[in-house]
Amino acid sequence: MKSKDIEIIEVGPRDGFQSIPQFISTSDKVRIIGNLVNAGISRIETTSVVSERAVPQLADAEAIIMATKAFAGCSSQVLVPNARRGQQALDMGATKLCFVISASETHNFKNVRQSISGSLAEYDALSSIHPDSSTMRVNLATAFDCPYEGSISEKCVSGIVEHLVSTPHQIELAICDTTGRCSPLLVSSLFTFLSSEFGDICSWVFHGHDTYGMGIANCFAAWETGIRKFDASIAGLGGCPFAPGATGNVATEDLAWMFEKMFLNTGIDLDQVLQVAKEVSRIPGSQTGGRVRDALSGQ
Amino acid sequence: MKSKDIEIIEVGPRDGFQSIPQFISTSDKVRIIGNLVNAGISRIETTSVVSERAVPQLADAEAIIMATKAFAGCSSQVLVPNARRGQQALDMGATKLCFVISASETHNFKNVRQSISGSLAEYDALSSIHPDSSTMRVNLATAFDCPYEGSISEKCVSGIVEHLVSTPHQIELAICDTTGRCSPLLVSSLFTFLSSEFGDICSWVFHGHDTYGMGIANCFAAWETGIRKFDASIAGLGGCPFAPGATGNVATEDLAWMFEKMFLNTGIDLDQVLQVAKEVSRIPGSQTGGRVRDALSGQ
Repeated sequence: MKSKDIEIIEVGPRDGFQSIPQFISTSDKVRIIGNLVNAGISRIETTSVVSERAVPQLADAEAIIMATKAFAGCSSQVLVPNARRGQQALDMGATKLCFVISASETHNFKNVRQSISGSLAEYDALSSIHPDSSTMRVNLATAFDCPYEGSISEKCVSGIVEHLVSTPHQIELAICDTTGRCSPLLVSSLFTFLSSEFGDICSWVFHGHDTYGMGIANCFAAWETGIRKFDASIAGLGGCPFAPGATGNVATEDLAWMFEKMFLNTGIDLDQVLQVAKEVSRIPGSQTGGRVRDALSGQ
Repeated sequence: MKSKDIEIIEVGPRDGFQSIPQFISTSDKVRIIGNLVNAGISRIETTSVVSERAVPQLADAEAIIMATKAFAGCSSQVLVPNARRGQQALDMGATKLCFVISASETHNFKNVRQSISGSLAEYDALSSIHPDSSTMRVNLATAFDCPYEGSISEKCVSGIVEHLVSTPHQIELAICDTTGRCSPLLVSSLFTFLSSEFGDICSWVFHGHDTYGMGIANCFAAWETGIRKFDASIAGLGGCPFAPGATGNVATEDLAWMFEKMFLNTGIDLDQVLQVAKEVSRIPGSQTGGRVRDALSGQ
């Protein structure tokens, strides 16, 4: 099998599904995740261990964690907002966690009910219980722009990154354009700055939203600075309950299409992933994005 | 008034309207063009002088040409497929023409019923009658990819450009991704090649479609190679009757948004252009694109 040039990390089952009001049955979720794995996606953010009241769609986290362990070739990550939820996720059988912290105080508080320094302490605690055998993943939300505070400075981002990389645990850090208001020039600028400041201490991911149509351009700009890992969401599902106006993530199928047109291997079978995107776009209440699905359906 | 960093050339009234089956009244067209001018757009492809049978939507070309002459601060260009239609357009009062030729033989024949060499002879004839006082504009369609022939080679493009720049008349050359199947890497590659081959002989424009969601990324890649003029279509209207599957051009409001976020001046008032985009999106039969319109409406 040809080695991959690009890793597309599917976040639809967590970042996408959580925005759909009507509960998707656990068996439907598991089937969709299985279809994504079959389409060649080898890393998936499958669920989140959070308050069932805050995010009822993800109340079946334990069942999802158990079921997706069975998928060969699928590395599953589970989002957690603090160390207590992290321990719960590990107890449920998760082997790789994704911790979330925002670069903006206001968004961090609305998202996880913590100050940034409180979240950094949670991260330290989580780091000490996370299995050494797998890299911990961290999402740095609102890294460019916050729905409440506006522009976020590079200094503010680097202050948080400095703390995150100071623990001995290996991390993978996703820099998130939560609002989708970032320009490709800003993506270039922040990744160039972070690479020069922190080099290879982190393994970087770009997580973009397509709310203002900049998603693919922002991914291209990140790729130009050397980023090779990208979050994306099947059918462009997404949004953030605590970021007003934020709509879908970059669509997995559009991103896979771009890299295919750039002759870069993502390991994804575009026809198969399009079938999953069509299935997902029929889920009642789903807000979809992306263009490739419709463009290729019309052919 | 601050000088512009970027020129966005509005092609909706021609490239967009021609795909709408139901006739839009001349007075509605003129009002929309006027609103675009008021929003700060200073160059507009207002209509085309072509067979009324082939493109019934543009049968009112003469009235449009006459009416838009009255708009101060608006440079209007009129698309023509050959020298005879060019003469007709000049007789109707047009002062700036836009000639169209495809880099693919098959598309050129389907679009203008001519071989490429036949179209080049038409261009020579048009060049001799075009007013010296204004730059002639040429659209090089299917410059990257053809719906019938697939990939187009750089050699094929440069052969046509070589002929176009050999006449004494000053031209502005729009390199068109007619199918929208081009990647940002290919945009970079072709513009880098053309600039090294032809330097400043031409004034370059990038004309992109968003059929596969690559429109904004492709514009960003063109900007990185030094391109400062871009075609776009209000509300992402567009398509090509002779390019199956081609949907809208890059949306004017999304492109203006990107450059605004890059702190580059397009001269466009985003709020005003969004009002026009909303009006246009309500035209019966319009197929729209872009994300900024919906994103900002939701706020």
